[in-house]
Amino acid sequence: MAHIQLPEDLPGIRGAMAFRPETAKPLNELVEILLRGPNSLTRGERELIATYVSTENDCYYCQTIHGAIAAASLGDDEALVKKVKCDFQNAAISDKLKMLLVIAGQVQQGGKLVTSAAVAEARAAGATDMEIHDTVLIAAAFCMYNRYVDGLGTEQPRDEAMYRERGKRVAREGYVTVSKEYLPAVEAR
Amino acid sequence: MAHIQLPEDLPGIRGAMAFRPETAKPLNELVEILLRGPNSLTRGERELIATYVSTENDCYYCQTIHGAIAAASLGDDEALVKKVKCDFQNAAISDKLKMLLVIAGQVQQGGKLVTSAAVAEARAAGATDMEIHDTVLIAAAFCMYNRYVDGLGTEQPRDEAMYRERGKRVAREGYVTVSKEYLPAVEAR
Repeated sequence: MAHIQLPEDLPGIRGAMAFRPETAKPLNELVEILLRGPNSLTRGERELIATYVSTENDCYYCQTIHGAIAAASLGDDEALVKKVKCDFQNAAISDKLKMLLVIAGQVQQGGKLVTSAAVAEARAAGATDMEIHDTVLIAAAFCMYNRYVDGLGTEQPRDEAMYRERGKRVAREGYVTVSKEYLPAVEAR
Repeated sequence: MAHIQLPEDLPGIRGAMAFRPETAKPLNELVEILLRGPNSLTRGERELIATYVSTENDCYYCQTIHGAIAAASLGDDEALVKKVKCDFQNAAISDKLKMLLVIAGQVQQGGKLVTSAAVAEARAAGATDMEIHDTVLIAAAFCMYNRYVDGLGTEQPRDEAMYRERGKRVAREGYVTVSKEYLPAVEAR
């Protein structure tokens, strides 16, 4: 049971956002820009970073929904998503993404733990300053989203089919658009 | 030295935001709503929560600037801010705020660590569901801001007078307004 009275039938962050649409608006805009906005990293790559950080933070809802969005963005390759979650160094992803995931893992542990060596390796693998910036901010942002979802004790149903369907839809339509179904008041504010 | 090439002479999060104005916009809107928007918690109380979490995350820039904003919001009571940072249980703050700081500290460690007992104690001290929600989200958000600022290795000058002056200005004008001075392009987007 959630720590506060959240709207029913809205799992994970959706219930929290419906409870407080004022903060939901920038939260949705941030994730939209970070994971779907114009970028030299693909949407699939960015969703993998979000999924990996959420896994390290042990947030079931976030790792499952972003894992599903990542899979939908990567030709429905659920096996690749699972491999990245548990053993990204041996996954079929680019060396650049592996190095960015190392940085994301350091951020997840704490901002001061990002090493110059990891940044240098990412750069040597082709990462730009913007890609390093976005990796740090995606990882930092999911340290927020994960804590928000788990810190309120939100409902997180164990229903893989639900996350898979939802993941396809978010991959197709985006966060801000899909959020309108449970945040009807935001547009009018 | 920062891990990436950030604009010079903009310390802490300001350099990171100037580097990436697209993400700076929702980041500023989120902190504006959480710390300055309409709320039954005062601005000073909310800045104390942000300062405390930033202290626990050992982020010099964030704990110092938000500590300065908190002091400016609390009649320039810098001694109270220092007490809350190191020993809030014995600070001259309400029992409700103490209980909310306990929850904020749990969120800082990890979302799953928030206990029903802490939530019940906050409620017994008069906290509403909205106040508990906002405490969780403020704490979660500063786990992001702190990691963003430290994860990029931003410049964080040890200059208390600079933070004090800046803190007074942000307390007076707000985050979004003050950010326009170094994010000139955001308005036009």
